[in-house]
Amino acid sequence: MTDNESHADAPVVAVVLAAGFGTRFDPNNPKQLVSVGGKAIVAWSIEAFETDPRVTDIVVVVNPRVRSAVEELVDGAGYPKVRLIIDGGAERVDSTMAALDALAANGIPADAKVLIHDAVRPFVLRSSIDGCIDALDEYRAATVAVASTDTVLLTRDLGDRKVVDSVPDRPNTFRAQTPQAFRFATIRDAYARAAEDPDFHPTDDTRVVVDYLPGEPVAIVAGSETNLKVTTLADLPIAERIAQDAAKARAKERMHEVLAEAAGRMRR
Amino acid sequence: MTDNESHADAPVVAVVLAAGFGTRFDPNNPKQLVSVGGKAIVAWSIEAFETDPRVTDIVVVVNPRVRSAVEELVDGAGYPKVRLIIDGGAERVDSTMAALDALAANGIPADAKVLIHDAVRPFVLRSSIDGCIDALDEYRAATVAVASTDTVLLTRDLGDRKVVDSVPDRPNTFRAQTPQAFRFATIRDAYARAAEDPDFHPTDDTRVVVDYLPGEPVAIVAGSETNLKVTTLADLPIAERIAQDAAKARAKERMHEVLAEAAGRMRR
Repeated sequence: MTDNESHADAPVVAVVLAAGFGTRFDPNNPKQLVSVGGKAIVAWSIEAFETDPRVTDIVVVVNPRVRSAVEELVDGAGYPKVRLIIDGGAERVDSTMAALDALAANGIPADAKVLIHDAVRPFVLRSSIDGCIDALDEYRAATVAVASTDTVLLTRDLGDRKVVDSVPDRPNTFRAQTPQAFRFATIRDAYARAAEDPDFHPTDDTRVVVDYLPGEPVAIVAGSETNLKVTTLADLPIAERIAQDAAKARAKERMHEVLAEAAGRMRR
Repeated sequence: MTDNESHADAPVVAVVLAAGFGTRFDPNNPKQLVSVGGKAIVAWSIEAFETDPRVTDIVVVVNPRVRSAVEELVDGAGYPKVRLIIDGGAERVDSTMAALDALAANGIPADAKVLIHDAVRPFVLRSSIDGCIDALDEYRAATVAVASTDTVLLTRDLGDRKVVDSVPDRPNTFRAQTPQAFRFATIRDAYARAAEDPDFHPTDDTRVVVDYLPGEPVAIVAGSETNLKVTTLADLPIAERIAQDAAKARAKERMHEVLAEAAGRMRR
């Protein structure tokens, strides 16, 4: 990790948002608790950060209905980086704000790298997480995204129809994924400005920075098709297939780390 | 079809673009000829229009490498609406222009409804085709599209990075599919204007109208997730699953038509 030694002091905090109620899902089995590949979706997400040696701390944001289940999962698995399990709010932004407030209350430094991740994206790649951490050396904001393979149409309402307003160049159209990553001071500043705007209703943390800190470039970090958002029951068969591959990939990563650590100890 | 009697005179012409070389696919087996659910992809696409009683004519655009295979398919299946199999060009727009020229040479009227469809979207729904035909009663241009479930990011280049430029409201972001549908005079006019622009390089017919006939609203017609574009080998397993369902759905549609026709004959 020689490349990162100059930033070794800045904590890398993953905020895992697991507070959604998932109205499009089975109401009696919140989607973040659904098991794929033998493991709850939220556990996959937490482990993606838990097993990345560059991530120092994890905060999990829950709602009252899933709190005890998530606490059991965390206690059972013994994820040592999970520092806090806090209550989120009604909307996604309320959950992000609750997390930012909790980080502030816990004295996190302004230059901390904060990676905000949707728990229902269980198969985020290590390379995307590390890509965010690296991008924050150059930029104060970054987001994982994939290039759109489809032409994107921007529309407006005309009567009861949507009509096409413009067709952006395809190489400049991306689909946002998570994590979305920010230096702590930057995302706090953006949310503080947004909170003063009565029309504030974003669904995406990147947009808060783009809209309220317009001078601040947000870097694109390569995501993957496998980093899907589990939104409906129809996503579960695909998620199961990805889970099988992800389990192998993560076991391989872990093996490489163990070997690297052992080699490091032998050299000392 | 009482709603459509006032437009019964305007032909409805499907242009099936099967001229792509599919560089991301197996070069020895062009993707439009790959079989899914026991049928070539291009045959699925032609049949979607062949079996829709509101479509009057079909033009298939091919490249020299697939011409004889497509001709054999059409002869073998005996699709009676296929009037022409013409050669396309190097780019998608060249193929569209070749089709428009062929339609003009064949004396198609200015008010004909032209539905331009990518052959590699084999599972277009009847409802999307009919939605285009209906939309052209109110608008001169329409495109099948699906609402984006992901937040779309519009980017620009900053050094060797893409950075986010803006984040449009999600309800106004759609992913374009095909068919894209136009009154013949409108798409001819748009392409004629585009041809005078040395910077012309669109990848999408809708964009030609949006960019070169800016006053012309293009209506959004509901597409479907199953109307996928078969682009890489990785799409084939999904395509196979959709093919199974599509075969059943089309058989059901056909049965309803036969029954409706029989009922109509009994009433006369």
